Amino acid sequence: MSQQSIPDLIAKKRAGGEHTRAELEQLIGGYTRGEVPDYQVSAWLMAVFLNGMAPQETADLTLVMAESGDQLDLSSLPNTVDKHSTGGVGDKTSLILTPMLAALGLTVAKMSGRGLAHTGGTIDKLESFPGWNPELPEDRFIAQAREIGLSLVGQSKDLAPADGKLYALRDVTATVESLPLIASSIMSKKIASGAQTIVLDVKSGAGAFMKTLDDSRALARAMVDIGTRAGRNVRAVLTDMDTPLGHMAGNSLEVQEAIATLNGTGPADLTELCVTLAAEVLLAAGQVADPAQARERAARALQDGSALAKLEAFVTAQGGDGSLVRNPEGLDVAPGRAEITAPQGGYIQRLDALSVGRAVLALGGGRERKGDPVDVGVGVETVCKPGEQVEEGDVIYRLYHRGGKGLERAQELLREGIELSGTPPEVKPLILDRVQ
Amino acid sequence: MSQQSIPDLIAKKRAGGEHTRAELEQLIGGYTRGEVPDYQVSAWLMAVFLNGMAPQETADLTLVMAESGDQLDLSSLPNTVDKHSTGGVGDKTSLILTPMLAALGLTVAKMSGRGLAHTGGTIDKLESFPGWNPELPEDRFIAQAREIGLSLVGQSKDLAPADGKLYALRDVTATVESLPLIASSIMSKKIASGAQTIVLDVKSGAGAFMKTLDDSRALARAMVDIGTRAGRNVRAVLTDMDTPLGHMAGNSLEVQEAIATLNGTGPADLTELCVTLAAEVLLAAGQVADPAQARERAARALQDGSALAKLEAFVTAQGGDGSLVRNPEGLDVAPGRAEITAPQGGYIQRLDALSVGRAVLALGGGRERKGDPVDVGVGVETVCKPGEQVEEGDVIYRLYHRGGKGLERAQELLREGIELSGTPPEVKPLILDRVQ
Repeated sequence: MSQQSIPDLIAKKRAGGEHTRAELEQLIGGYTRGEVPDYQVSAWLMAVFLNGMAPQETADLTLVMAESGDQLDLSSLPNTVDKHSTGGVGDKTSLILTPMLAALGLTVAKMSGRGLAHTGGTIDKLESFPGWNPELPEDRFIAQAREIGLSLVGQSKDLAPADGKLYALRDVTATVESLPLIASSIMSKKIASGAQTIVLDVKSGAGAFMKTLDDSRALARAMVDIGTRAGRNVRAVLTDMDTPLGHMAGNSLEVQEAIATLNGTGPADLTELCVTLAAEVLLAAGQVADPAQARERAARALQDGSALAKLEAFVTAQGGDGSLVRNPEGLDVAPGRAEITAPQGGYIQRLDALSVGRAVLALGGGRERKGDPVDVGVGVETVCKPGEQVEEGDVIYRLYHRGGKGLERAQELLREGIELSGTPPEVKPLILDRVQ
Repeated sequence: MSQQSIPDLIAKKRAGGEHTRAELEQLIGGYTRGEVPDYQVSAWLMAVFLNGMAPQETADLTLVMAESGDQLDLSSLPNTVDKHSTGGVGDKTSLILTPMLAALGLTVAKMSGRGLAHTGGTIDKLESFPGWNPELPEDRFIAQAREIGLSLVGQSKDLAPADGKLYALRDVTATVESLPLIASSIMSKKIASGAQTIVLDVKSGAGAFMKTLDDSRALARAMVDIGTRAGRNVRAVLTDMDTPLGHMAGNSLEVQEAIATLNGTGPADLTELCVTLAAEVLLAAGQVADPAQARERAARALQDGSALAKLEAFVTAQGGDGSLVRNPEGLDVAPGRAEITAPQGGYIQRLDALSVGRAVLALGGGRERKGDPVDVGVGVETVCKPGEQVEEGDVIYRLYHRGGKGLERAQELLREGIELSGTPPEVKPLILDRVQ
């Protein structure tokens, strides 16, 4: 293979050209290995930002990034499936969906992240179960997935290291908000994680990375396209993130709400999302052909207790106190209570999801920086949701706290995020669109 | 002054915004001082490459670069003038023009560069005079300019250091061929050099940086605009660089040809260019209002020997053997001779200027890398010029060499650059356009 010079490759993208896989390997593989300096890659990133990337090129970049580090080999497991959410506030979907999928006969061998800033992470939430261990050796990780259909660990540092290195550079060179770069960043980790079927929950709205439906749809389309070109079964569901999902935000509180949902007594929006996503996985994996039948099977896993039993087996297998799944009131919840009430009567026009995420952070339930400790017990309950009519003094938010100066800040944030009006708002549906 | 973050500044240019002078100072001044890392500046350079810069913004960037290091203060001298050529093969114009301008009563206190690759440098050419010293302390430099109207030194390392640093980064990030970046690079050094009047000789064609007349005209327009906004008198002349100027390429040979021109017996094209440029300087400096009168005065400086006398005084003042100006056959010229003859009869369609430059380099008359020694005695004489009719065996090029393996390579290069045809070519005029 004859190598071009790096400036020649930059000039090609500068002129709007389309890179070959070998060229991307030279540039981005070389960058990850320390052979290409950051100042050349940042010029290339800006050219990508302004000139875009073609679909095949984006898929090739993703594969180069996926191959830059460890890749999970799940080929010995049947029907491997994975789910990814583009992040949001109060998103406890993975806690409910992964045991549902295991109960439906699929295999989930999954890596999850920790929370940062106003978004939570599944690993943090699972650590509400005392003793639960997010680190398993690879052979136990695979064996557990084979036995009970579900194993879940923290994300390896060497999963797609090109992505981590590129993201850090994009962050300081104003090249973050590029569709092919966002899509390849997410999909490189999913592809390196090895599942054959991947369903993406693309959040849209104030609490999400993508603020408009058009942007969210374009991101979903790009990610599905990448996965399909990489030989995986990929579908995406676009969901509303203008208001937090369910009622709870904060680690233990979200686990309690997830358990209620697995018991069939969870909030309607959260239950609906989990059934939709599980049905989509069954369809994408080719297990069921008829959408109505897929939804029916997904709903049954909640009604018959099989999904809840999977959560208990999973928590226990990874060293956690599985008995808490049957007695969730035993989870550590902060004892302090405070309420935010409606300052006047009216319809709740909007509750800002970002404010809720930031309030949890202020209470100590999230981390500002990687490695910060997290208080699993604090959180915010959204008592009333958008569209509901309230009288002056009705409780809108309830805070679970341990006192301290963060409480005042949290209350302030929540108050600022409330919009009331005299007329009922148009409430968006939870499921906005599907992309396959 | 409230400072924005560097990523915010990059994002502004990414979106096609126009920077303020303060923003450019923060970004490029900061880069020169080592406060802003190269990976941020290279992303910004690519955004500039793709989105361009507005005229005032380009002028502001130029001033920020000019102010990044030493600036020559020529305010104690009357009628300071400078000339810049965008470079080319066999361009000995400065050797002729600067003594002409001194003879016309103007003051030239000028910094010049050394040659690199296939282009020559005025300092190298002047070093054909044994003992001539390119380094003067600033007070002597100014005093000499006041006394005889001409002093010329090598370019200070601290003249517009931002330009040197930016150019090195552009070179490895595919961001060289950007009009505002090229124009600001050239003009930053001219403005830091202090002259009130600047005439630019913008070369166009195969031997020049700008290959087409449109590109050359746009560059000239951008540079004149920058200089005018910086309060200087600036004009540009666009000249053809498809064929080498005059007949000689190589340091001593070019000095001999320059002296012949100062004696009024030089080649027509070289004489015409020097008269044109000198007249343009007189007009730009406001010394003469009528173009015909300006040309007449310029031509007289050659005819009456006053320009030649200035060259002698100047060489002598800087320690050189000024007697060689009257006896140029005493300059060191290599003794070896070789000829390239026409392989068949026909009209000379084209003689590639780049081939001539490379042939001189192959003979040892130029430098591949900064600091390489240069043999002032070798060179190439273009005996016949484009448009002339030749018979098979007629001499087209004569080489002045000291043997060695470079000779064969030089002959090969020259042969490859000859284009003959059965019909006379359209020969372009030397002066293509003027911009003011």
